[in-house]
Amino acid sequence: MGSEDVKVVSFWASPFGKRVEWALKFKGVAYEYTEEDIFNKSNLLLELNPVHKKVPVLVHAHKPITESFIILEYIDETWQQNPLLPQHPYERALARFWADFVEHKLLNAAWVAMCTSGEDQENALKVAREAMQKIEEEIKGKKFFGGENIGYLDIALGWISYWLPVWEEVGSMQIIDTLKFPATTEWMTNILSHPVINDSLPPRDEMLVYFHSRRKALSSTLKGWFKV
Amino acid sequence: MGSEDVKVVSFWASPFGKRVEWALKFKGVAYEYTEEDIFNKSNLLLELNPVHKKVPVLVHAHKPITESFIILEYIDETWQQNPLLPQHPYERALARFWADFVEHKLLNAAWVAMCTSGEDQENALKVAREAMQKIEEEIKGKKFFGGENIGYLDIALGWISYWLPVWEEVGSMQIIDTLKFPATTEWMTNILSHPVINDSLPPRDEMLVYFHSRRKALSSTLKGWFKV
Repeated sequence: MGSEDVKVVSFWASPFGKRVEWALKFKGVAYEYTEEDIFNKSNLLLELNPVHKKVPVLVHAHKPITESFIILEYIDETWQQNPLLPQHPYERALARFWADFVEHKLLNAAWVAMCTSGEDQENALKVAREAMQKIEEEIKGKKFFGGENIGYLDIALGWISYWLPVWEEVGSMQIIDTLKFPATTEWMTNILSHPVINDSLPPRDEMLVYFHSRRKALSSTLKGWFKV
Repeated sequence: MGSEDVKVVSFWASPFGKRVEWALKFKGVAYEYTEEDIFNKSNLLLELNPVHKKVPVLVHAHKPITESFIILEYIDETWQQNPLLPQHPYERALARFWADFVEHKLLNAAWVAMCTSGEDQENALKVAREAMQKIEEEIKGKKFFGGENIGYLDIALGWISYWLPVWEEVGSMQIIDTLKFPATTEWMTNILSHPVINDSLPPRDEMLVYFHSRRKALSSTLKGWFKV
């Protein structure tokens, strides 16, 4: 399949967009990448995703698909080589469950924690660390969530290995306690050495600059966000 | 398949639990129903859903599956008669997209609007009505989202036809403007006359009493929830 059929519209520092790229690389599907300026949105983005106006968008056969988890399902159903989701419905349900859990508990809380301070940050950190504990229990004894190779959940949670340490540095906070979460720490190393993942990570120094600026811009908006 | 293999643990007034029952009825899968007291949670629920401690739970072959949309996917993959999701990956992605959109925009906003008043309610109503407008555009010209018969999206959005009018009455508010949303209004009538849906709706008068009590209990918690 030629890359002219498959386009990804995303933003370089988006962990959501990176999921889509990882899944396509894992499947061996060539694609054309278009960088979107999310602070000055293009007409292209507004046409492709008029409802949420957000990246990433996958465009396949001239049709836009949005929302990273929905895109992962689409990719898995469209290109059946190297399955992302497990075969059995129960295992598939578990993978979807943990993806959703981490998105709503860890990712949201870590983001708020990065942007806030004081009691707001402590409240968010509590939620984030409790979520990390659950992940630790799930990954224990496995190289990847997908088994010997990466799968849906590794791609859904892959941001933890690269984005989260940057957010920790920006927020002057610790979520990944390597002593408390040794299995997660090992999984992070495995993820980062996987060729699909480490092929296209954005430069760490640019990530630091970018997320410092997000922290500054959002700190007042996210104040009082977490009522625990 | 005997009903001893399939159990649903839910709460009578839960729109999320009703989705699971509708999907099983649509598939013709017999199940055993267990009513959960969500204000005094049973050990059974805490064992089945230790992470979120929420209904509904589907138990199949002694394994618990949680989160209503994930359960719908599981049901569709496990019992392949009467498919819920469309066949084509793009149509499947659209169904998942709108289910997710309505959950996060309309359902959340309508719930907050029911529980609040004044400016908080107005902010939430604005979000809810904008979401209704999108639904109206999607359902126009169709009997059901699934076509001639109900499907995944009808089951995901079915609560609009029965729960939302109750919430409107409890919150003394209007979201479903029948003049502005004629196609949605017609779809609501179609949904309510479908044998799978109208077989098991909770009594309206008991719903009114129950949601009035929720409004009273949650009004202070949800104050200031919607920052528009």
